[in-house]
Formats: sequence, structure tokens, C-alpha cells
Amino acid sequence: MKKIAVFTSGGDAPGMNSAIRAVVRTGIHYGFEVIGIMRGYQGMMAGEYKKMELRIVSNLLKHGGTILKTSRSKEFMTDAGKQKAADFLHSQEIDGIVAIGGNGTLTGLLEFRKFYKGKIIALPGTIDNDLYGTDNTIGFHTAVQTALDVIDKIKDTAASHERVFIVEVMGAHSGFVAVHVGICGGAEEILIPEVNTSLLSTVTHLISGWRKGKTSSLIVVAEGCAEGGAYQVLEKTKQLDLSVEIGSDGLDCRAVVIGHIQRGGTPVYFDRLLASKLGLFAVEKLIEGADNVMVGEIDNKCVLTPIEDAVYKKKAVDPFLLKAAEILSI
Amino acid sequence: MKKIAVFTSGGDAPGMNSAIRAVVRTGIHYGFEVIGIMRGYQGMMAGEYKKMELRIVSNLLKHGGTILKTSRSKEFMTDAGKQKAADFLHSQEIDGIVAIGGNGTLTGLLEFRKFYKGKIIALPGTIDNDLYGTDNTIGFHTAVQTALDVIDKIKDTAASHERVFIVEVMGAHSGFVAVHVGICGGAEEILIPEVNTSLLSTVTHLISGWRKGKTSSLIVVAEGCAEGGAYQVLEKTKQLDLSVEIGSDGLDCRAVVIGHIQRGGTPVYFDRLLASKLGLFAVEKLIEGADNVMVGEIDNKCVLTPIEDAVYKKKAVDPFLLKAAEILSI
Amino acid sequence: MKKIAVFTSGGDAPGMNSAIRAVVRTGIHYGFEVIGIMRGYQGMMAGEYKKMELRIVSNLLKHGGTILKTSRSKEFMTDAGKQKAADFLHSQEIDGIVAIGGNGTLTGLLEFRKFYKGKIIALPGTIDNDLYGTDNTIGFHTAVQTALDVIDKIKDTAASHERVFIVEVMGAHSGFVAVHVGICGGAEEILIPEVNTSLLSTVTHLISGWRKGKTSSLIVVAEGCAEGGAYQVLEKTKQLDLSVEIGSDGLDCRAVVIGHIQRGGTPVYFDRLLASKLGLFAVEKLIEGADNVMVGEIDNKCVLTPIEDAVYKKKAVDPFLLKAAEILSI
Amino acid sequence: MKKIAVFTSGGDAPGMNSAIRAVVRTGIHYGFEVIGIMRGYQGMMAGEYKKMELRIVSNLLKHGGTILKTSRSKEFMTDAGKQKAADFLHSQEIDGIVAIGGNGTLTGLLEFRKFYKGKIIALPGTIDNDLYGTDNTIGFHTAVQTALDVIDKIKDTAASHERVFIVEVMGAHSGFVAVHVGICGGAEEILIPEVNTSLLSTVTHLISGWRKGKTSSLIVVAEGCAEGGAYQVLEKTKQLDLSVEIGSDGLDCRAVVIGHIQRGGTPVYFDRLLASKLGLFAVEKLIEGADNVMVGEIDNKCVLTPIEDAVYKKKAVDPFLLKAAEILSI
Repeated sequence: MKKIAVFTSGGDAPGMNSAIRAVVRTGIHYGFEVIGIMRGYQGMMAGEYKKMELRIVSNLLKHGGTILKTSRSKEFMTDAGKQKAADFLHSQEIDGIVAIGGNGTLTGLLEFRKFYKGKIIALPGTIDNDLYGTDNTIGFHTAVQTALDVIDKIKDTAASHERVFIVEVMGAHSGFVAVHVGICGGAEEILIPEVNTSLLSTVTHLISGWRKGKTSSLIVVAEGCAEGGAYQVLEKTKQLDLSVEIGSDGLDCRAVVIGHIQRGGTPVYFDRLLASKLGLFAVEKLIEGADNVMVGEIDNKCVLTPIEDAVYKKKAVDPFLLKAAEILSI
Repeated sequence: MKKIAVFTSGGDAPGMNSAIRAVVRTGIHYGFEVIGIMRGYQGMMAGEYKKMELRIVSNLLKHGGTILKTSRSKEFMTDAGKQKAADFLHSQEIDGIVAIGGNGTLTGLLEFRKFYKGKIIALPGTIDNDLYGTDNTIGFHTAVQTALDVIDKIKDTAASHERVFIVEVMGAHSGFVAVHVGICGGAEEILIPEVNTSLLSTVTHLISGWRKGKTSSLIVVAEGCAEGGAYQVLEKTKQLDLSVEIGSDGLDCRAVVIGHIQRGGTPVYFDRLLASKLGLFAVEKLIEGADNVMVGEIDNKCVLTPIEDAVYKKKAVDPFLLKAAEILSI
Repeated sequence: MKKIAVFTSGGDAPGMNSAIRAVVRTGIHYGFEVIGIMRGYQGMMAGEYKKMELRIVSNLLKHGGTILKTSRSKEFMTDAGKQKAADFLHSQEIDGIVAIGGNGTLTGLLEFRKFYKGKIIALPGTIDNDLYGTDNTIGFHTAVQTALDVIDKIKDTAASHERVFIVEVMGAHSGFVAVHVGICGGAEEILIPEVNTSLLSTVTHLISGWRKGKTSSLIVVAEGCAEGGAYQVLEKTKQLDLSVEIGSDGLDCRAVVIGHIQRGGTPVYFDRLLASKLGLFAVEKLIEGADNVMVGEIDNKCVLTPIEDAVYKKKAVDPFLLKAAEILSI
Repeated sequence: MKKIAVFTSGGDAPGMNSAIRAVVRTGIHYGFEVIGIMRGYQGMMAGEYKKMELRIVSNLLKHGGTILKTSRSKEFMTDAGKQKAADFLHSQEIDGIVAIGGNGTLTGLLEFRKFYKGKIIALPGTIDNDLYGTDNTIGFHTAVQTALDVIDKIKDTAASHERVFIVEVMGAHSGFVAVHVGICGGAEEILIPEVNTSLLSTVTHLISGWRKGKTSSLIVVAEGCAEGGAYQVLEKTKQLDLSVEIGSDGLDCRAVVIGHIQRGGTPVYFDRLLASKLGLFAVEKLIEGADNVMVGEIDNKCVLTPIEDAVYKKKAVDPFLLKAAEILSI
């Protein structure tokens, strides 16, 4: 093995640049040539790349986004696209690739396996934390922190106006961001895709809190929860006939969608550290012959998981957290 | 004059607490009794208040929101409501009131004048900066900084994905936030209520930038601009037939609404300083007999402006800024 | 068991308030009376306390410091002092105490055991992360993040002036903060108490980096490392005769001590979450009869460790991190 | 006039990059060739420069430091050095230079005038705000905000431990940073070079505050104040015999020096805006024939001031601020 390639794909996540830096420097440290493929699978098909030198990745730790750019490619979904991408890698004599991305990127790798002859290793780069085989994905901690900073600000207004704020965070299929943010932001209610919650019981609980002296409240909603996003929860709540419960005026409720800013920004220390460790570990394992695996960190140890498991097995939200969310918001 | 009251009203703005602290401490310094009325006009009608002591306002400078709470009151819009509020002030022998709020709060004061016999002075507390008689309102600088922090994050994603982001900031009737944020965030286009812009020319300009080498772009939109908010601008842009200009794929555009977080959070230094100066000045002028005026800062000097002018006269966006926005985004 | 007490002691750490909130709410949830003792052991001897209600701990998650205040007490070091403290607890019929603090606080508990008849449980609240029995202490993540934010700023100046900055972070006996910050800040060298490093080899390494194209560098120093703090390292470096190596001008080196700000500030999400989990777990275990133990989190599970072990056993810095620090800074 | 040069010199200040961007883009907008000289006067003598294109200054607004690097040059202090620098400019046919820096940089320009035949214009880039001819220098607002963020954190510890913190901020000859930070951080005392203060009266005032109920205090000290920096003030305070006043234990005082971090970091919006306006204005005035002047902003208008005045005339701290500092900290 003499030459490896690294690329980022799918939605960008804070810490991807730290991962690129780790892969490049570890590769060079062990005597390999490292190239960076631009724009994920799109650039791989088009043969867009640059040779990575030590200094290209200087001062990269603190920057959000990815210097290798990223994209979602339709053409790569086809066999012709995948063949084109593999042809490029073969023509450049790339012995192994390090892919940084989330669920979609890894699913792509599973099929790309049939076309590309070199080794394949993946790094979990996604804010959603929805990959099996790692306690945390690169970008998750920063996304939670960003959402929490927003919620800290919103709570100022909630307290001043004595309002209920319904805040939507990322998480199309999983409630990791919502649960972490919810506990740390002091949410009275957290709605996630994994748990069926009746809105009526949610609101009843809220009202009982106000009776015990609360004068403002926070509901955190994952974008993919059964009741819909923040605006839908707001609408449905209004349709419940709560006049008996809370008098004619009712609670003053507002909806907020945090959105894209959860993807960007300077990565927090944890994501820089995780990306550094996983990037280093990935290259070392690639050299040792690892193939078709994702690197991850479980119980503070770097480990390998078959990409297939990473994609298809389900990582669950810790029930202890759900219990904590309930008890601590009384 | 022996006893004064302070309250906050309308939308909360960062720095209101600093203003409350300044009013309370200056009042006590000059030998006055100061009371704080809760929940704005709502609490004034209900007679909700607390006596303000030196230590109540300790450690308040850094906190967003308002410890006196705030609200928008429908009952106060009626004559009966205003009479009730005045009765409370008279019964407590309040010689003068210091109101902290925005356009709506000051408009309320104009009519309240007929009911209340004491002195009335106002502080401009609103993130919109749309009051005549002061270069900056309390909260404006923090709102701009908060919106800019969000944009800095979004630009990471815009650059990584080579996208156009259309970002909506506060400003129902004025473009102050949009212009300041736009210049400092490096926006290619800034759409504000004060200026009529054709979307076609906006997009044409954008495309010409991409031809000169740009690979991501930012459009900042004030919520009250003629073309609508960020989502409406996105929709209208899609309806323009731009296929000749930019090929079949077009630009990848996304809309983001920053929303409520612009109201909250720790005030930046400028707002703490402005609130401290204006709060001190307001009490000194109240003692000297000022009435029906708003305190403000123009050209670094504290000044008084009739509340009527503050509400009805129009403060314009500096044309030099519009020119800077255009030249610097080439 | 009917009544428990909670207090903070020793140096303050971000997240202590989150821990207090968790202890109070969990205690009340399970039907206990909870009191808060002021100023640590000092207040325990003086009988200073307040009854904790649900709403006292509202909006506490984001606040640095500790609402129960803290101190270091000389009187408590004596037997008479400890007897006085125990007398107070017995007089108030406190069945168990939850102590939040670091090494000094826990050492105090070991001896206090002979005087106090109730149950004793401890929470690891210290920025140093130097307690055995938990992967992370409450406050550690925030301290690392704060130090990293400072380093990100300093690197701007280092790059602009092409300088070497020697930055001292907390860690009198351990290098946890230094190693984490060093890797995430991209330090060329990290000096910690646990590892003997020759300054000559440090500087030689630095110079070889400049020969490979670096134009600014960062050395992170734990306050307790063998060569001394940042200023001492700076002085010693100057005394090395490096003129042959780097020419007459030499490298432009500066020293910075980050200091007290690492203790304060809004806790990052991780510390709020850890404090919430450990606070909840502590109360549940106290109810179940746990005694003389510290709660901690190892491999994402809450666990109990004898206080004696927590204090006297040594937690080591992960060698994988030291390796990463070296490879990634080439 | 066809070709202009821009450079940064002296201590770096946040916003310098925004100023470079504004100069480059405005220059190109008006049809000029713009070159960037590296490392200030040092690079000018060595002939180090790069041609500035539109895209070189993309995404620069948010970055601290200066992409043109900076230095303090001894050689330029000599006539031979200045001749060498002028020779380079003449050989490159540079018709005008835009210098971005503080007092030292501008003093250099005064003498450089005799050697260089083109036009000279300066931008005030320094965190100290000690230049006459502008209300604010580029970098001042960010430095104040950074120092304030530090103080907000320190106050958490001060409140928890009931301590007095003596915090030193930048300002060798002027108290602008100290006064602004002091008011906004709620300092009980502010010591600046411009005002003679007796330490005894300072401490007496402090003690009287504690008698009125304060339980923690903040003293802000400018580095160049007569009593020395934070550590010297701490030592001198300890030597005052205060045992009668405050009992045997005394106040628990700590010193903190904020230092270099005030120079770095992402510029706040105000500095980006000011730098954008002044950079644009400087190039426009250069084209119109301005020479030997510094651009600045006074009362929200861009203005020109002879460099000689900018350097030698004294800008005073507003007495209203000193009064506010005193009244609001009671």
C-alpha cells in the first residue's frame, strides 16, 4: 500500500476538517502519499483531486465545514457512476480510501465495494449521531452545543414574556440531539422519533408544571418525531381544547426551528479530539489491512465495525437519559 | 420628586437589565425611592410591583431578557385600561416613570400622557433600531452580533456545499439589522424594506459573481422586505426562468430564518454601555424636570427627543452603507 | 432516610449548579427534604443553610459557579472543626450528605467519616479531572473548551507575528487539560507533570518543524510540569544556546498563563449532562444505602467507587493521546 | 494613479483582515492594481509582496490576525532602512500606500514621508483606541468584548468564593479598554493611566461596598496605570494595614492578567463594519489625492486627520463615563 485517498461526502459536520488533517498527517507520517478528492463521490467520478501536503492541513482544527467540499450525488447512485468513480481510483493507483460521512455516505460504500478493488474504511462524520458502532459521531457534540446556545438565548425571552417555546432540533430518524439538548437546556418535554408521546399528556404535564410555579417552559422536538416538527406541534396544541385547564387566555406558545446552523461553526474540543483519534486510527488500521469497516469509539476505545452493521444496526437512546429528563424537569 | 418607577414593555431586548440597573442605582444615588413595575403596562394596571434595592440589581449586566418581565397588553389600549394604570401610579405617589421599550411602548406613552400626572421619560429598548432620536437602540448591537454569529456558521455549510443561502433577519419595517449583518457577513445581496429591488437583477448579479469565481453566496433579507421573507424569496427565485443563464442544474439555494434568538442572550458590551449611559442620563434629566421625552445617543452625546418625534419621525439607513455593501461584495 | 444535605466545596467548577439542581430535584422527586449548606465545610460548621425548593434551582443549568458558594476551610482540618460540623448535621437530623468537590473535598470526607453518623456520598466537581473512578469530572470539559477558545485566539496573533506561544493551562498534578487542549489546539509540544521531557529536545523538535515550513508554533504547558509554568519554560528556553540552530534572531517566543477563567463561565453541554446524570444517580444510590463512595461515569455507565480509591488511586493519561499529539503535529 | 499597496504593521488587531479586504476590493472596483506587502515595513524593505485578486480576500471578514502578517522592524527605524523600503515601492511604481496599524506604524509613516514619493494614507488598526482623529480604532471593540467575556467568567468564581478580583486589561498609555470593560463588567473600581487614584481610597471604597452588602468585587486595572499592573496592585493592597477596617481575615484578593488574547479572535460586527467603511473611504480619498492623512470615523462620519495630529494629539476618556462608572457601582 502506497497511496491513499480521503474525501468527505453528504451533509457537512463540524470536525470533518480535523479528521482530514488527522488522515493526511498520519498517512504522511507512515510514508504514504495522500490525495484529497473534492466534492465527495461527485468529484471522484469527475477525477477532481489534489495532492495533500503537511502544510495544506495547517490551522484546520478550528474551521467548520470541509476544505475538500462535499455534495450529494445522484449519478453515483447508478452503476455507471460507481464504475466511473472506481476507474478514477484505479487509474490513480489508490490502494485505499478513507470516506468521511454519515448514513448515506456509508450506504454508498456498501455498493461501491463491488466496483473498487482497494481497501475501504469509513469515519462517522454526521451531526445526527445515528450510526451504530460508535458512541459519538464527529460533529454531534458541536451540533448539541450549538442548539443549546440557541436555547439558552430563547429561554431569556421565554422567561421575560412568560411563554412556552417549542424548539425543533435536527434528527430525522433519531432523538440523540433532542434528548441531550433537552436535558441540558432544562426542557419540560422532549419529543423524539423513538418514543410515542401523546400531545395531550405532554400539555397536561406542562400545565401541571405551571400550577407548581413554573412561569415559562421549553419543549424540544426532533424534526422527525411522529407529531411533526415545531410548527405542527404548535398547531396541534392549539387545537386541543384546553380552556377548562388554563382559562381563556391560555399559554402563550411560540415555535422555533434551529435548522442549518447546527451543521456549521467552529468544532468544540470533543469533536476535534474524536476526529483526531479516529483519523489516526483509521489510517493505522488501513495499513494493517482493514477493509469494509467503519472506525468508531466505544467506551473510550477506538474500534472497528463492519460498515454494514454501522448502517443497518440500530443505536438506541439510553433509557437512563429519558428517566433523567423526566425527573429533573419537575 | 421623591419616588420613581421603572418598567419594561413590548418585545424584550438584550441590555434591558443593564438599563434597569442604571435607573435603579442612579435613582438611589440621588436619594429617590425606586420601584419596579412588573410585566409592563399589564402589571401597572394590576398594581404588581416591587421596591428596588441596590442589591436586587447586582450581577444583572450580563443577563439577557428583563427581570421586570414584559408583555404586550390589549387592555391598556383602552381608555379604561390607561386610567387604571394611572390610578395605580397616583395611589403610589409615583412622581415620574421611566419606560424601557420600542415603538409600541412609546406610542402607548403618548396617549397615557392624558391620564398620568407625573413626568414621563422613555429609553429606547428594541433590537430593531427603528426609533428616531438615537443612533442605536438598546439591544440592536447584540441582535446584529447574534445574527452575524449564525451567518458565520451557515457560511461554513454554504462553502462546503457550494450553495446560496437566503437568510432572514429581524426588521419588519426597517433594514438596519439586515444592512449591518449583510456587510459584516459578506452578503452578495441585501434586501430591505426601504429599497425596492428586482429579484431578477438580484439573481443576475449573483450569477455574474459566480462567473467571476464565487462558489457560494449569501443573500440577507429583512423580514419586512417587499419580496417577502427568506422562504418567499426562495420560491420566487425558483420561478424565474434562469436555465439559460446557469444551465440545467442551477444554483443550490436554501432559506434560513434566524428568528427569536436575535432577542435573547448576554448583551454585548456596547449594549451594556449604552444602557448604562442612557439609564443614568434619564434619571438625571427626570430630576431636572424633563417630560414626554426619550433619551438617546446621537454622535456620542446623550440627548433628549420628544417621544412624538421618536415615534413618528423616520430614521434612514446611511446610504454610504448601501454603497459599501455593493462595492465590497464584488 | 428523610432529609439530605448538599454542598459544594473547594475550587468552583462549571456544572456544579447543574449537579445541585439534579440532587435537589431528585431528592424531592423521591419524597425527601433537601437542604443546601452554604460555603462548604465552613458553612457546615457555622450552621448556614437553606431549605431547597423546586423553584430555587430553576434556570440554574447555564450558570457557572455555585449558588451554594464554596470555600476552603482551615478550621475544618481540625478535629474540633469536624465535630462542630457533624454536630450541626446531627442537630438537623440530616440522614445523608452529598458533597460536590475535588480532591481536597473528598480527602476531607475520609476523615469526617469518624465524626458524622449519616451516609456520605461524593460527586466529582473539579476542572482538573484528576479523580480516579470517573472518566470525566464535572467541569473538566468546560475548562478544556475555555482554554481552547483562548488558544484559538492566540493562534491568530502567533500566525500574524510568526511567533512561538507558550501557553500554561491548569493542572497542578495532572496533564489532562494540557493534553486535550494541546491536541485540539494543534500544539507542537505538550509538557505535563506525568512525563519527563527535556527542554532541549522540545526546542529541537520545534526548530525542525520550522525547517519543514511551519511559521508559528504552540507549546502547551500544564502548570505543575517539572520544568515549571509558561514563564519558567520561556526563561529556560532563552538560556539554551540555540544561535547555531536558528540564527542570530532566534524565534520570537511569548508566554501566556490562562489562569482563573478556566474555572468560570457557562458550562458546556457535556458538563451539564454529566452533572445531571451523576446528581440523579447519587441520590438514588444514597437512598439504596450507599456510603463512603463517589459516583462517577466510566464507559458511559454510572458507577460507585470508594472515596478512598477516588482520592488515592491514580488515573493515567491515555498513551494513545500522547501518540496522537506527536503524530498529528508534524 | 494606477497601482496601490496595502500592508499591516505593529501589533495585530481584530478587523485588520476586514480592512485589507475593503482596500483590495475598492481598489479593484475603481480599476486599480493592488498589491499586498508582507510583514509590514520588514517585508517592504525585503520586497516581499503578492498581487491581490478579488478572491484572495474572500471569507476574510471573520478571521482574526492579518493574512499579510505583521512585524515590528528595527531596521526600518534607520534612514537606510526607510530608503530601502522606498526604493522597493518606487521600483514597483506604487503610486500610493495604505498602512494599517497603530501609533508606532503611524509614527513610522511621518518619517517615511521624506523617502517615499507616492501618496500615504493610514487606517487606525490597534486595540488600544489611543489614536486622535477617530472615535474608535479597528480592533478596539473586539478587545473590549474579549476582556468582558473573560470578566464575566471570573465573576462566577468571585461570587462563588466571595473574593475580590483585580483584573488587568491592555492599555499602556490609555484607559479606554479599562473604562469600557469596567463599566460593562460592573467593576467597583477602575484604575487608568489618565487618573491619579490613591490605593487607600480605592480599598476604603471597596470595604464600604462590602458593608452595604456586596460579597464579591472587581477592580479593573489598565496595564499602564501609575500603581502598576494587577499583581503590583495586589501586593500594595496587602501592605496597607487594613486589619482595623475588615477584621483579621481580610478580603480574599486575587490578580488576573488577561493579556494576549485581547488581540486575537473573530472580530465583532462593529470592527468588521468600521474596517469596511474606513478601507473603502481610504481608497476613495487616495484616488482624490489625499496624502499624509489617517482616515477615521467621528460622530458616525468618515473623516481625514493629518497623521501628525493622529499621533501627537491626545484623545481623552469621556468624563461622563468616569461618572457613570462611579454611580453605577454603588
